[in-house]
Amino acid sequence: MSGPNRRAIQKEETRRAVLDAAREEFERVGFESANLRSIAARAGVSAGTVLHYYGDKRELLHAALFDDLDATWRAALGNLGSGPLENQLSRLTAAVFGYYQARPKLSRTLLKESLFADEPWASKFAAQIASVTVEITRLAARAIERGELREDCNTALLAAAWVSFFHFGQISWAQGAYPTPVSLIDHLVRQHLQGLRPVEKQPSTRRAR
Amino acid sequence: MSGPNRRAIQKEETRRAVLDAAREEFERVGFESANLRSIAARAGVSAGTVLHYYGDKRELLHAALFDDLDATWRAALGNLGSGPLENQLSRLTAAVFGYYQARPKLSRTLLKESLFADEPWASKFAAQIASVTVEITRLAARAIERGELREDCNTALLAAAWVSFFHFGQISWAQGAYPTPVSLIDHLVRQHLQGLRPVEKQPSTRRAR
Repeated sequence: MSGPNRRAIQKEETRRAVLDAAREEFERVGFESANLRSIAARAGVSAGTVLHYYGDKRELLHAALFDDLDATWRAALGNLGSGPLENQLSRLTAAVFGYYQARPKLSRTLLKESLFADEPWASKFAAQIASVTVEITRLAARAIERGELREDCNTALLAAAWVSFFHFGQISWAQGAYPTPVSLIDHLVRQHLQGLRPVEKQPSTRRAR
Repeated sequence: MSGPNRRAIQKEETRRAVLDAAREEFERVGFESANLRSIAARAGVSAGTVLHYYGDKRELLHAALFDDLDATWRAALGNLGSGPLENQLSRLTAAVFGYYQARPKLSRTLLKESLFADEPWASKFAAQIASVTVEITRLAARAIERGELREDCNTALLAAAWVSFFHFGQISWAQGAYPTPVSLIDHLVRQHLQGLRPVEKQPSTRRAR
């Protein structure tokens, strides 16, 4: 392998080691108490190297969390099965909350930062949730085709409702009000879908459920 | 008037002057850039006096915002009219957003802090939203009595849905995604209420609307 290639690989390995160390340290002591020297020591590099890659602690937090959370969303969206929509949304909720619940300390910080980050992270987190919204809109359109939802169902508004319930679950959980928000979110989604089901005008033609 | 009474009144006036000055300064330059000396100067007191009452800038932020926001919620809840529920919820949304929209800079900070504050403010903000939730549950129970909602409507879940949509509107607005979230929230509430309307099983007995 040539020298430049090896250097590129080493660079990438260093980056990964720093991000892994950062996630461990943030989860262990919380964002406020975490310091760059401990993270550098954990990653086996100098504090200067960490600063060279990430500038400061907040930048490091975003880099460590964003990629990780992004991978979680992608994996969850790729594993929703074929329906009904209610089950697909429940799977999505459970998968993303699994990520949060495995990292309780980190997630509180993540949540605060993802909802109220400064640029460029504000745009990145906004794009992340926008792509989730687009995907739910598509899932809802397929649910209309399957006859699960009414033809005139506003799919974009349904997606916004799911994001609303999801944020509510996140916030309630981070505040300590609900230890298991997944079931709360499922109930809110079910109640919301009630009004979007096809109207069965003629009881004689009602489908078996 | 006796000396001690006059001192108590002066104290209260000083507190109010400091809180007013803090709100103005936070809105003018943002929470991060605001400094205690400018606030003290604006209130006509020493920085030591401000620190004596409020300890630090974050404490001052919470004291300045919480009372103000609390008064806004109380006034809004006291002025919802007699129904229908959909209109009452729309009035509540508009009144509280009126407060935010009149103070755009302050509100972004307020939002971040009210959703993710540390104690004792976390409990105070949680109690504030809990009392709103209780009030919406009551309004929904009256809507059931009026025949607007089904008998088996879960009023607590409906209240949680309203809070979800309200937070979603707040967050979207603070992120700059929706300049006018009130109408978005109204649409989400309307869609949610669709499934909670009484089932009109017998067209011949359908009420006039």
